[in-house]
Amino acid sequence: MTTTPSPVRWLSEEDQQVWRQYLRVSMEVNEALDRDLVQTHGLSLNEYEVMVVLSEQPERRIRMSALAEEIVNSRSRLTHTIRRMERRGLVSREACADDGRGVNCILTDEGYAVLERAAPDHVDSVRRNIFDNITAAEARSLGAILGKLGESRHA
Amino acid sequence: MTTTPSPVRWLSEEDQQVWRQYLRVSMEVNEALDRDLVQTHGLSLNEYEVMVVLSEQPERRIRMSALAEEIVNSRSRLTHTIRRMERRGLVSREACADDGRGVNCILTDEGYAVLERAAPDHVDSVRRNIFDNITAAEARSLGAILGKLGESRHA
Repeated sequence: MTTTPSPVRWLSEEDQQVWRQYLRVSMEVNEALDRDLVQTHGLSLNEYEVMVVLSEQPERRIRMSALAEEIVNSRSRLTHTIRRMERRGLVSREACADDGRGVNCILTDEGYAVLERAAPDHVDSVRRNIFDNITAAEARSLGAILGKLGESRHA
Repeated sequence: MTTTPSPVRWLSEEDQQVWRQYLRVSMEVNEALDRDLVQTHGLSLNEYEVMVVLSEQPERRIRMSALAEEIVNSRSRLTHTIRRMERRGLVSREACADDGRGVNCILTDEGYAVLERAAPDHVDSVRRNIFDNITAAEARSLGAILGKLGESRHA
């Protein structure tokens, strides 16, 4: 009979707890937002984010390479996501007019209409899952901490 | 010539900023941790988390259904992840002894050894990407806010 080795220990008890909580809560929130979008509008959270980024570009178009920079999470799956969205008529792709080498991704009118319909429900979902559950001061504090984490990554 | 509709607006400017920052930072952190683990130990962050959960169970085994509860993020891909880990000898599966219906997932000795080697590097990666960049007070504050978010989800 062998003795079971003790669990791996890492970080202080306190940091470890923050870290595990971060993992769990962020995953649960993402899952809830994704589920809501899929159920009400047949869109994944990734697809929704692509459409938001596109909607904010001049003429609702952006180079695929620049889009990949904006969509950090699903970068490896971006081509696949865009292909699927293109089949549904939400986006289209075309060669860049200026140099003919790059490829632009464009939010179609149909895609914009789908985003406009989905946005109020998604906002509601984000509110219910996050901002309704913390105070304005906590939201500011969360923003400040995330800001520090983000800055340190680009320093 | 058509006019480009204005971008979709949602949440207050301040909450919107917190939310976008949350999306970006959490994705970047996850990507950095995943990249570090893949490069140094050939493990994805998901695989690593499965191994941590297993290492904390009595006799390093847990029902697949209970494991799915612990691993929120990759639940839909869990069977696929476990199959891949099984082929590498990191985990094994066997019918539950007590009722013969459920399936246990077990961290093998080889899996435990891989986890023990990866853990110090992963801790270092978590420290560099998160805890080195915020004060102890900010870590506590982050933990408290996440705690509230987590609780509200299970209320």
